[in-house]
Amino acid sequence: MSTDSRSLQDRELRVGMVGYAFMGAAHSTAWRTVNVAFDLPARARMALICGRDESKVAGAAAKLGWDAHTTDWRELVERDDIDIVDVCTPGDSHAEIAIAALAAGKHVLCEKPLANSVDEARAMVAAAAKAQAEGIRSMCGFNYRRVPAVAMMRQLIASGRIGVIRHVRAVYLQDWIVDPQFPLVWRLQKDKAGSGALGDIGAHIIDLTQYVTGQKITGVSALTETFVKERPLPSESSGLAASSGNGADAPATGQVTVDDAALFLARLDGGAIATYEASRFAIGRKNGLRVEINGSLGTLVFDLERLNELEFYDSAAPTSEQGFNRILITEADHPYMAAWWPPGHIIGYEHSFTHEMRDFVEAIANGTDPAPSFVDALQVQLVLDAVARSADQGTVWTEVEPALAEVAA
Amino acid sequence: MSTDSRSLQDRELRVGMVGYAFMGAAHSTAWRTVNVAFDLPARARMALICGRDESKVAGAAAKLGWDAHTTDWRELVERDDIDIVDVCTPGDSHAEIAIAALAAGKHVLCEKPLANSVDEARAMVAAAAKAQAEGIRSMCGFNYRRVPAVAMMRQLIASGRIGVIRHVRAVYLQDWIVDPQFPLVWRLQKDKAGSGALGDIGAHIIDLTQYVTGQKITGVSALTETFVKERPLPSESSGLAASSGNGADAPATGQVTVDDAALFLARLDGGAIATYEASRFAIGRKNGLRVEINGSLGTLVFDLERLNELEFYDSAAPTSEQGFNRILITEADHPYMAAWWPPGHIIGYEHSFTHEMRDFVEAIANGTDPAPSFVDALQVQLVLDAVARSADQGTVWTEVEPALAEVAA
Amino acid sequence: MSTDSRSLQDRELRVGMVGYAFMGAAHSTAWRTVNVAFDLPARARMALICGRDESKVAGAAAKLGWDAHTTDWRELVERDDIDIVDVCTPGDSHAEIAIAALAAGKHVLCEKPLANSVDEARAMVAAAAKAQAEGIRSMCGFNYRRVPAVAMMRQLIASGRIGVIRHVRAVYLQDWIVDPQFPLVWRLQKDKAGSGALGDIGAHIIDLTQYVTGQKITGVSALTETFVKERPLPSESSGLAASSGNGADAPATGQVTVDDAALFLARLDGGAIATYEASRFAIGRKNGLRVEINGSLGTLVFDLERLNELEFYDSAAPTSEQGFNRILITEADHPYMAAWWPPGHIIGYEHSFTHEMRDFVEAIANGTDPAPSFVDALQVQLVLDAVARSADQGTVWTEVEPALAEVAA
Amino acid sequence: MSTDSRSLQDRELRVGMVGYAFMGAAHSTAWRTVNVAFDLPARARMALICGRDESKVAGAAAKLGWDAHTTDWRELVERDDIDIVDVCTPGDSHAEIAIAALAAGKHVLCEKPLANSVDEARAMVAAAAKAQAEGIRSMCGFNYRRVPAVAMMRQLIASGRIGVIRHVRAVYLQDWIVDPQFPLVWRLQKDKAGSGALGDIGAHIIDLTQYVTGQKITGVSALTETFVKERPLPSESSGLAASSGNGADAPATGQVTVDDAALFLARLDGGAIATYEASRFAIGRKNGLRVEINGSLGTLVFDLERLNELEFYDSAAPTSEQGFNRILITEADHPYMAAWWPPGHIIGYEHSFTHEMRDFVEAIANGTDPAPSFVDALQVQLVLDAVARSADQGTVWTEVEPALAEVAA
Repeated sequence: MSTDSRSLQDRELRVGMVGYAFMGAAHSTAWRTVNVAFDLPARARMALICGRDESKVAGAAAKLGWDAHTTDWRELVERDDIDIVDVCTPGDSHAEIAIAALAAGKHVLCEKPLANSVDEARAMVAAAAKAQAEGIRSMCGFNYRRVPAVAMMRQLIASGRIGVIRHVRAVYLQDWIVDPQFPLVWRLQKDKAGSGALGDIGAHIIDLTQYVTGQKITGVSALTETFVKERPLPSESSGLAASSGNGADAPATGQVTVDDAALFLARLDGGAIATYEASRFAIGRKNGLRVEINGSLGTLVFDLERLNELEFYDSAAPTSEQGFNRILITEADHPYMAAWWPPGHIIGYEHSFTHEMRDFVEAIANGTDPAPSFVDALQVQLVLDAVARSADQGTVWTEVEPALAEVAA
Repeated sequence: MSTDSRSLQDRELRVGMVGYAFMGAAHSTAWRTVNVAFDLPARARMALICGRDESKVAGAAAKLGWDAHTTDWRELVERDDIDIVDVCTPGDSHAEIAIAALAAGKHVLCEKPLANSVDEARAMVAAAAKAQAEGIRSMCGFNYRRVPAVAMMRQLIASGRIGVIRHVRAVYLQDWIVDPQFPLVWRLQKDKAGSGALGDIGAHIIDLTQYVTGQKITGVSALTETFVKERPLPSESSGLAASSGNGADAPATGQVTVDDAALFLARLDGGAIATYEASRFAIGRKNGLRVEINGSLGTLVFDLERLNELEFYDSAAPTSEQGFNRILITEADHPYMAAWWPPGHIIGYEHSFTHEMRDFVEAIANGTDPAPSFVDALQVQLVLDAVARSADQGTVWTEVEPALAEVAA
Repeated sequence: MSTDSRSLQDRELRVGMVGYAFMGAAHSTAWRTVNVAFDLPARARMALICGRDESKVAGAAAKLGWDAHTTDWRELVERDDIDIVDVCTPGDSHAEIAIAALAAGKHVLCEKPLANSVDEARAMVAAAAKAQAEGIRSMCGFNYRRVPAVAMMRQLIASGRIGVIRHVRAVYLQDWIVDPQFPLVWRLQKDKAGSGALGDIGAHIIDLTQYVTGQKITGVSALTETFVKERPLPSESSGLAASSGNGADAPATGQVTVDDAALFLARLDGGAIATYEASRFAIGRKNGLRVEINGSLGTLVFDLERLNELEFYDSAAPTSEQGFNRILITEADHPYMAAWWPPGHIIGYEHSFTHEMRDFVEAIANGTDPAPSFVDALQVQLVLDAVARSADQGTVWTEVEPALAEVAA
Repeated sequence: MSTDSRSLQDRELRVGMVGYAFMGAAHSTAWRTVNVAFDLPARARMALICGRDESKVAGAAAKLGWDAHTTDWRELVERDDIDIVDVCTPGDSHAEIAIAALAAGKHVLCEKPLANSVDEARAMVAAAAKAQAEGIRSMCGFNYRRVPAVAMMRQLIASGRIGVIRHVRAVYLQDWIVDPQFPLVWRLQKDKAGSGALGDIGAHIIDLTQYVTGQKITGVSALTETFVKERPLPSESSGLAASSGNGADAPATGQVTVDDAALFLARLDGGAIATYEASRFAIGRKNGLRVEINGSLGTLVFDLERLNELEFYDSAAPTSEQGFNRILITEADHPYMAAWWPPGHIIGYEHSFTHEMRDFVEAIANGTDPAPSFVDALQVQLVLDAVARSADQGTVWTEVEPALAEVAA
């Protein structure tokens, strides 16, 4: 009897989550809320949380509301009473955990970016494909697809409302490492994080723009920069917050091995041309993901710091009345919003994860494949890889390798 | 042994909530989240929910996560194992339930407006005062005080940053009954709701502006209007959503007995002059609470539809650099925000309730009186009363009765 | 032979302007530009400027581009070769100059407010009516009617696009006298200015809202305040800029005899209810005229500090696409804009005067009556008068006297 | 006797302008206004306008206020009574006219881009250098430097307020040729215009960002696109407006030989990295020049459609009060603004030209070299050239040739 059919019998899907830092907290909020906010065909249960530090993970379990905890992700992956494995660790362990979980017949939700390298991502795609044949589902956690305004963009574009897409203009700007004394946390180390702004936040705008436009990036020309090349070693760090060691002596320092910022031009397979920029040095921009899409008939603009709003310029209106229409995406007929409050009562960042869990649970219960699939996530990885290669080779134009052929191989 | 000391022993406060519609859902979300988001001296437990319809309240209990349910609020109020009674019913039953709960030694959180009349509010204040002598806490649920940007406004004003307050400009605009076919729900009936836009949303801007300025309204000149005087009777209604009956015949209609909009001028006891407007006919404004405070040294602007932002004009800056500074209220040193996400990751409407529950739980655990007290809420009621009397008497200037003298009496 | 027919013969209208301060400079810019920007049936010629101080008015004539100057307004009014008298003096001399000019057969453009009192305004209306019988035109200079976005509001409302008007919400906020050391310029003296914020900027929002809605204010309830009651006497002042005397001794001070702020509620004859506020103490608001009109079908919002934009919420759009549409009013099919630059190239404050002169010249040349007429301006004066009386009498509801009956009398 | 000393004697500078379309109209407005708005050491006189079509240029002279007209630019350049030659023609004639004017001892103001090719620009620089030795001034008309908010950006950056510059982010977006039926006007023909969006609007953001940052672009990686490759031939065209021929037959069409959009990444010589985008296909963006500069200490944002505003994020403020400060650039202590209206009374697009003329006249009268010089403009041309070469060669990284070495050579 497959895990899936069991969970459908008793209408409960038991989740085991690996990791309890920033993403772990966000996912926990979502797992706790999803059954309440939505009428789901199966109920998610926060069964087991895993982390390396016993006392910390015990505290996280109590605080975040998990039934039990463990320090051994292999135990979590193999336990019979776990249906879903939710991977919230840094990128360097995604592949190992996800592949083991899939092999153990668990549905897998893996945080983005899918992996730290294309090779790892390919291995994960292969594992997912094999598991899929037995009804096991896998999904990568690009949560911004589930922001209602973003889902609405996709609907408007898919229905032809802005016509043929000409321009994509996407930035994801933050400023949390502008201070040169900010310590060398794992996100600034290539072996842990794979890359810097590029994979952390650049991956989001790659996925988001491809998702809403329905077009794939085919080639890029890229430039990356590390403005602060050496930083104090952290005394301890977790999530996005950290402090540098404060002994009597000057703190030991280490090399920053990832990019602070990544910029690239791109062509998309539907004929659009694009600019992308990811930076952690754009002072004042806290979570500044901003996307503008210009089509032959209209324009859409989204800003994550005002995620309840969508701007739509519609050239179908009379000339004298055309303008940027600020739509407050809080109506019951907007994507996901019937679950929440009356119009004008806004939602926050964390709701995107709740929507993600809803879609994942529904796909599992309904026996369909959720999106973004591991193949979709591999394709993002291939774009990241092309960007990194272009930047390494003096901004040379670099084609993005096709993801699907890899799967076929 | 008082309820309070018992709850402090076992560190659990058992909540019984009456009502399960819009406010019931919002409060449930907050009770479910407050223990996770904050490190509280006592843990809130969602023990019991009460509603009149057995099957509906059973469904609500399951859906919203309450341990048990009942259809008898008197049972809830009197049960030994309930520490907090949370009153989320329409205004016409606030007084009866709250007074009974206080008499039974329960801490009471009562939704705003406190009551449908000044007399009821006075009785509640008297009951709260009597209970307070035995360590029982009471609070009225003006949740917008707990929006971080609003709390920040109060801090800036209290620390003198905008100087002597000259002007208060407050509107709360909605549009959900613009359609004349929208049915005659309880919020449009004076016997249930007490008043219309005035008590429902006008009460919020009265409390909010008095809270942030630290000034009380002393007199008003008011004008109210009911634009649509007759509406179809509802087939069934709950919360803010409703549909009119759709039999083969024209639906029966009824008289709208509350205001659609209320406007008033006011003077505050610190010398400020003010305009207030509450309306359900401001098309396009969904939850449009907007407040601007002009002081002798600066200005603050808040808009609930963008509740993560606060605008601050500071005349202490050099002339050529003065401007409206849009502060994104998502930093860890902003009120309540250390509990949530990294900077720039916004929160939503529901978080104001989570903050409210935190403050209430902390006050109970710490043995302090939470605000807004029932006296504070009575004072808002007295303003509402003055507004209604002014409007009834041809917009004549009407002094607001003092709330404290009433308590003393 | 009437002045009018003469001017049509030689296609030139010779303007004599009285006053050369702020409004004088603005009108000069407009007279200098109007022939270039528009194809007019007659050419305006800047013939003569008048001021009391010989050397200053000579300098103004040279600087602003007037052919000649005089210190005697009576000479200007009576000269045969003047077709238009443009009255830009403080309000206390409007009536005398305008009536004399009309009697002398000159077309008269008079700055707002029309006069400092209703009696003066009535006399001016009578003079205008008499002159009109002989083809002499008169107009009051409410220049904001000529802001393209404002003209567009009127068109949209007149064509029914926002339905039945429910709410008018108008503020005109400035902050130039917040500093208590700002001197006692003429605008702060009742005998010169008639009133303070009320007549200076309140008059604008009264006229503007009545113009765009097509409704008249029928009654008001008002409250005024003078926050700073005594100020240093000015050493010298002109326009809006001034400095207080700076002798070795403390400057002599004088009483502020006008309102710093005026607030009022109103009813309009089409059923709308309204709030109005004019203040010179709203720190940070430099020229903050903001108007919002809510109708049964839509909302319009205008902000003078962003005068090239108009926000339009149109409930005719599908629910999920309704929003506040920011229309950039720079298209050739927007009012007045064909005269200017390509789309997106914005215009400024002064253009409103150029448009005003265009409309006035066209009316004269075409033999039609321009608007706002002196009757329209008297009606604004009657609203100002009702506001002042209401404020004087404890905010009592005060009906606005009808203007037309006065004319008939 | 040099022209310059003559003009200083009689305090009049006689201007001859070549071209009377869009830029001709804008420059005429500025020449007409500059003497009035500013107290200049010499008075500009609109002496002579030149255009190829006799009747049209005669009409333009009358309409725009020029003393005389001619159809022969050589006559204009050589006339003794002309001090300044203002070149407003399409780019293909800039070099010939400007060089002839400089040779004839005239001060030259040349519209941007300086030329259609680097070779022409070099020849112009050489001519300007030679003329400079005799006190003849030359300037290129990048008018957006004279927008007060832009000048203010430069001041803030120069005084270190935003620290070390990390990022430049510049777009100039328009949409006037989105319609494939828009005809093939001169701006879409390479032989007339040199390039498309790149030289027309891309040149503006190159100059503006280099000006405000004080850094030069050293290398680029670029991508250009022509979305609509064939268009109807125009029946007649002028400025930005045009109509396609409307004979009974389908209109003849022609090849679009310029770019519709140009995107590029860049490095600046102070260490900043940058993205640039110029497009005429960004629907809804009418004159959408938007620039954001992130430094180590702050951020500045400018948007030409709201040119009276500047956003400044200043990390020197306390953390909890940091935000994007919207400064209304209308105070007397803002650049150029003392000439205009009281605070909050905004200016428009055309004022940038008036400021340009002021700076040019002052430089001539004071005997100093105005900026941007022809060398500055050549450097912009070299960036444009590098962009075009990069795009032609598959987005290869392309170094910008140094301009100064060219001058030295």
